[in-house]
Amino acid sequence: MSDPGYDTEPWRLRWSGLAVDQLHRTESTFALSNGHLGLRGSLDEGEPVGLPGTYLNGFYEEHALPYAEAGYGYPEAGQTVVNVTDGKIIRLLVEDEPLDMRYGKAHAHHRTLDFRAGVLSRETEWESPTGRRVLVRSQRLVSFTQRAVAAIRYEVVPVHDEMQLVLQSDLLANEPIESETHDPRVAQALRSPLVGEFHWSQDRRAVLIHRTRESGLRMAAAMDHEIAANDGLRTDIACEDDLARVTIAADIPAGETLRVTKYLGYGWSAKRSAPALRAQVEAALAGALQTGWEGLLAEQRAFLDDFWDAADVEIDGDDELQQAVRLGLFHILQAGARGESRAIPGKGLTGPGYDGHAFWDTETFVLPVLTYTMPDAARDALRWRHSTLPLARDRAQVLGKAGAAFPWRSINGQECSAYWPAGTAAFHVSADIADATARYHAATLDTDFDREEGTELLVETARLWASLGHDDPHDGFRIDGVTGPDEYTAIADNNVYTNLMAQKNLLEAADACERNPEVGKRLEVTARETQRWRDMAERMHVPYDELLQVHPQSEGFTEHEEWDFENTPDDHYPLLLNYPYFDLYRKQVVKQADLVLALHLRGDAFTLEQKARDFAYYEARTVRDSSLSAGTQSVIAAECGHLDLAYDYLAEAALTDLHDLHGNVRNGLHMASLAGAWQAVVAGLGGMRDHSGALTFAPRLPSALHRVAFRMSFRGSRIQVEIEPTQAHYHLVSGDPVPTAHHGEPIEIGPTRLTIPIPPTPDYPTPTPPPGREPRRSTHILDTGAATPSTPA
Amino acid sequence: MSDPGYDTEPWRLRWSGLAVDQLHRTESTFALSNGHLGLRGSLDEGEPVGLPGTYLNGFYEEHALPYAEAGYGYPEAGQTVVNVTDGKIIRLLVEDEPLDMRYGKAHAHHRTLDFRAGVLSRETEWESPTGRRVLVRSQRLVSFTQRAVAAIRYEVVPVHDEMQLVLQSDLLANEPIESETHDPRVAQALRSPLVGEFHWSQDRRAVLIHRTRESGLRMAAAMDHEIAANDGLRTDIACEDDLARVTIAADIPAGETLRVTKYLGYGWSAKRSAPALRAQVEAALAGALQTGWEGLLAEQRAFLDDFWDAADVEIDGDDELQQAVRLGLFHILQAGARGESRAIPGKGLTGPGYDGHAFWDTETFVLPVLTYTMPDAARDALRWRHSTLPLARDRAQVLGKAGAAFPWRSINGQECSAYWPAGTAAFHVSADIADATARYHAATLDTDFDREEGTELLVETARLWASLGHDDPHDGFRIDGVTGPDEYTAIADNNVYTNLMAQKNLLEAADACERNPEVGKRLEVTARETQRWRDMAERMHVPYDELLQVHPQSEGFTEHEEWDFENTPDDHYPLLLNYPYFDLYRKQVVKQADLVLALHLRGDAFTLEQKARDFAYYEARTVRDSSLSAGTQSVIAAECGHLDLAYDYLAEAALTDLHDLHGNVRNGLHMASLAGAWQAVVAGLGGMRDHSGALTFAPRLPSALHRVAFRMSFRGSRIQVEIEPTQAHYHLVSGDPVPTAHHGEPIEIGPTRLTIPIPPTPDYPTPTPPPGREPRRSTHILDTGAATPSTPA
Repeated sequence: MSDPGYDTEPWRLRWSGLAVDQLHRTESTFALSNGHLGLRGSLDEGEPVGLPGTYLNGFYEEHALPYAEAGYGYPEAGQTVVNVTDGKIIRLLVEDEPLDMRYGKAHAHHRTLDFRAGVLSRETEWESPTGRRVLVRSQRLVSFTQRAVAAIRYEVVPVHDEMQLVLQSDLLANEPIESETHDPRVAQALRSPLVGEFHWSQDRRAVLIHRTRESGLRMAAAMDHEIAANDGLRTDIACEDDLARVTIAADIPAGETLRVTKYLGYGWSAKRSAPALRAQVEAALAGALQTGWEGLLAEQRAFLDDFWDAADVEIDGDDELQQAVRLGLFHILQAGARGESRAIPGKGLTGPGYDGHAFWDTETFVLPVLTYTMPDAARDALRWRHSTLPLARDRAQVLGKAGAAFPWRSINGQECSAYWPAGTAAFHVSADIADATARYHAATLDTDFDREEGTELLVETARLWASLGHDDPHDGFRIDGVTGPDEYTAIADNNVYTNLMAQKNLLEAADACERNPEVGKRLEVTARETQRWRDMAERMHVPYDELLQVHPQSEGFTEHEEWDFENTPDDHYPLLLNYPYFDLYRKQVVKQADLVLALHLRGDAFTLEQKARDFAYYEARTVRDSSLSAGTQSVIAAECGHLDLAYDYLAEAALTDLHDLHGNVRNGLHMASLAGAWQAVVAGLGGMRDHSGALTFAPRLPSALHRVAFRMSFRGSRIQVEIEPTQAHYHLVSGDPVPTAHHGEPIEIGPTRLTIPIPPTPDYPTPTPPPGREPRRSTHILDTGAATPSTPA
Repeated sequence: MSDPGYDTEPWRLRWSGLAVDQLHRTESTFALSNGHLGLRGSLDEGEPVGLPGTYLNGFYEEHALPYAEAGYGYPEAGQTVVNVTDGKIIRLLVEDEPLDMRYGKAHAHHRTLDFRAGVLSRETEWESPTGRRVLVRSQRLVSFTQRAVAAIRYEVVPVHDEMQLVLQSDLLANEPIESETHDPRVAQALRSPLVGEFHWSQDRRAVLIHRTRESGLRMAAAMDHEIAANDGLRTDIACEDDLARVTIAADIPAGETLRVTKYLGYGWSAKRSAPALRAQVEAALAGALQTGWEGLLAEQRAFLDDFWDAADVEIDGDDELQQAVRLGLFHILQAGARGESRAIPGKGLTGPGYDGHAFWDTETFVLPVLTYTMPDAARDALRWRHSTLPLARDRAQVLGKAGAAFPWRSINGQECSAYWPAGTAAFHVSADIADATARYHAATLDTDFDREEGTELLVETARLWASLGHDDPHDGFRIDGVTGPDEYTAIADNNVYTNLMAQKNLLEAADACERNPEVGKRLEVTARETQRWRDMAERMHVPYDELLQVHPQSEGFTEHEEWDFENTPDDHYPLLLNYPYFDLYRKQVVKQADLVLALHLRGDAFTLEQKARDFAYYEARTVRDSSLSAGTQSVIAAECGHLDLAYDYLAEAALTDLHDLHGNVRNGLHMASLAGAWQAVVAGLGGMRDHSGALTFAPRLPSALHRVAFRMSFRGSRIQVEIEPTQAHYHLVSGDPVPTAHHGEPIEIGPTRLTIPIPPTPDYPTPTPPPGREPRRSTHILDTGAATPSTPA
């Protein structure tokens, strides 16, 4: 067998060979999900395993948050995603030997995630320690079309001799997992989070129902099986609180196949009774059985065909990047497709990282992708935010503010951040939600949403800003003491990003009320209030450093001490693990795009000249200890004409998880980084902007690529943009013509392919990242200490 | 019996009557201590009790500090003062009825703390529920001259009939106490903190030795007794791990006295063995027995006579204030007299408040008092800081800084603050220590200290500032991201107080190195380094608001939103219990003097005109939720000519504990507030300043007072300053003449009483505190919502 690692293929992610010490990586990249149910990509037989994981979106356990020094308004309860009943497990005994990849010999072992089929498959030719040889094939899917359903087809073929094969197909609750927490209370809460309430089995079907100890949520998991084999089959079923097991024993001749199809149904509820939940999961099984395995495969492919028709990105000239960008889109789809009334967590449903919480990442990085590729999923995510408005209003009230203050991190909408300078103070999350709301509306003209949810989201967030800021005789409308996107500065005055996003929020809210006067009336918005919002937006203070001719990230930032990069060893990154917050906060070191993110999302507030100066300034001070950074830096590098730098950052964003650049892919994929890669392609190389709801492009290609093409949805139309070195092509895939602009020139994208030359690239000197923090597409570059931006192999 | 409350007497604090619900107050005000050993003023019989407490300075238990979100450099261990073995308890059985003030009838009950005798006495005439009547007199002292020793004389006289009296005199370890902590780990640590190691008894003497579970400190307590009574006496002694008890039974005829004198010896060590500690406490007992009760009383009085000769403050025209100021001086003396190589905690040894930690309060408020009244005690407190330099250097290193970073709160010198924005970031503590060091040196010219400890303290703190600040092209030498004295603003740039104190620190360090070149050499201070310090001091940035013509407390402060005082209900103070930090930090609301403290301690950096403007500005925004504020506001009010306001703040500072203005005197006295009252008299009404080591005065009297006189020590001389409405008198009590100034005119204080007229008072408009936050001398004023500054009854 060759060295393990991913093969480079345009439409599949494939890992050949077994590397037990790398399982945690592939379990995340091979995770399947539809946004409601998530299964990590662990081996069918359960072990060896990096980190087992089965997740239901929104299903969490609660635990007290400890404070050595408490404070008013500190959140009291934390939430942590629960590893629910595992239905993936199918164990195999070959004669009397359990298939365990750590023993015996694997003559072949391939795992493949197919982006068009939506199926994870596995092919293993295994020889037991005593020389018995079997071929195992499995296929696993989490259905996009039947959100409560997953299914596994498992096949075993004895290679040389007839063999007795025993399969044990499980539902297993309270699976032991290693916890990385240092808080004994959290560890305790997660050690055995599920309390058995009901178990039942009959024939080849079983149901387990559990509830969590503290949060009091109830879940059900059910399985059923179809078995195809010769006649000597014996099956058995057993069931107890935490385990249901169907056992299948058969003598299978050489070359013949024992085939089992396992259907899984999942559901949870905070309110519904155990009988109701049981009915729900059994109904899901009934639907799945009726559709059947082939039917599920077909539905899955049809769903994905439609998605790729709307969303595909082609990259010619860098095969690894092509694969990575498609993988990223596939995982974003998986995270958002069927989340419906639930959040899209920072890791999707691919791992327990960030305790399963959702952050502003969703609205700022993930939702733009969904807005332009699968708008209904973006709408559903915003509907979840809307459903948490009562909690956000309560939070604002506790904080003495008006409107709604959305949480920094949460599963159910309640603030769970125990460190207020980087949680509560990061009010920009509310503006980010407003921004996503306005973007979704502009990109879809979805008037139902605008009336039912959008306007209210905009109004309540605008009210927050109106009560957070104040008019000052010195310098207009200020927003003081808040934390912007950069987590290496906190509790600062007039964070430019926050102020500009709040400005937009205030204006969007006023516009929405004028668009929907009946909603404004219901929310008791007066003409005076909207006028006040417009006045505040008008007078919004944006600090500027006249001496350096750049925008300070926040008041005083450019007067702070420079970080001593020369004396910061490579192994001292991420800095927050090696330097105290107080010193990070008071110096000019930036964890992630903040002012640069403002250059993107509020690019309408800056000239190109100013963007180039600001970008150069922050580029030299941004260490990208956060995976949220590279995509945005790529977008602005591209706009300022630094196309090779933009390309390098695109690669970093896209390959973050495939190459485990942050060393924590074990805990799940970085959805925002994958989304950042899409942004780097579409908003970076494609120059797509949507200021004030107007869609525009300014495409340019880096020297390493021959061609980039991407598809997007806009107001019901689907378009394709292709970028070549000297020209761009636009055409309408379906729907009505789309008016837009190419490098500032108005055009209309219609059915006829439009070809337009690309104007010369702006010629600003290429800025440099801090020493040692150059963009990287693999961990390799940092290891060797190479200090120049990489170009592709 | 009359209503309970303190009688107003010039040299004693006396409480007549028993009020069980007020015991927690008197236990603190009646606490006895010598800085090494502290006994709360609980009743001899142990119950009823508010909060029992016996403390050994520096003796603490350790517990883990919990963090829901951990961070680099966060302190891991907390420290909490331990209620050690209680030796105060003497229980009385009258016939078969225990004396318990909650039952039967008290015909008389007086407790009196005598400031000149240094003795707490109690006189009770009690009638048991069945009508038996006894007179109980007790006197208790903690020796100033024999620091390990306390003694109690306990006398019982049957009033009408012969009675059988049984006395039980205890040493009791692990006394049950209520804990106010919400952290189960802290509560656990304090539930039964002492592990018995050794117990021994013989005749009338017993020794108990314990050690703490986590911190591993060892303590010993010993008692011995002298008994005077008729012949039919029977004594018994018993001893176990947590209890030693001498029992004395006697039939006492009516009118005769059963008298027991109990001697207590205490000691603790982190290193010494149990036998060594036993020897130490038995040696203390031997010394005490040899001196005898009368001898201890005489030593105590002689010690106090000397103290009052050096330190007395006379206030004519406000008897309550007279008493309160003397009580304050007495308690400051008790906190500092024999602390020797230990800290002076924020509560002294009067209660468990602030976990027994020492803060910057000691150096900034308490040490100036001691420096000018009992300079050796100030020296010892600074020697303690010096002894913790290795820990402070380690802390600086963890924080990536040079020199020494002293802790925000600690018992043993290790940082224990779990909330870094108000702990680690409050670097000014190191400048405060430097300031106290320089003050002590200037006031004593103690060259030994300067050489052995002082210069090193100055150098290591100067190095901290040199590494914390930086030179910036915009505006000189800046110190960013720190927290000043005001705890309602945190992590701000260029806190004026911090920058000015650091400036002084840098210059004092350079001067000290020039004074002590051999020390400079040992510390590897080069001429270049001292020059650098002088340059930094020279270029130190002090922000100024040109528009408002005031100094912002820190960068941007005056641009922040005003606090909405009109809509802040009275019961929402202290604000930190009712509003989130984020909102306090971002608004113009001040917990305690910060810029105003700079106006005092760095008054040389401001004109009087500027002080008046700054004071008026901050006065309107300072809520005094901290007891550290009133004294300083009094000092600057006086300087700016607002003498009645100065007087009101003086009263508030002095009466904080007597009237329990902060509602927490149960946990101990506010040493800094008591010291603030002294400052209000001496630096406020007396106008005493010591900028650059030069002692000057500018006395003025508020209309409510006829005369104020105070004594001070300066460079071995003792002087007295008397203030009358139109003139001041100065004279030398002992020592060499003292050159000084009176309202800017140089004078020399010699043996002849010098009388000088007082110039007219500056005439700035009197500023107003925030509505509802006027100075108050009792809780009454706030309760009635009265909104005008009080004048005395």
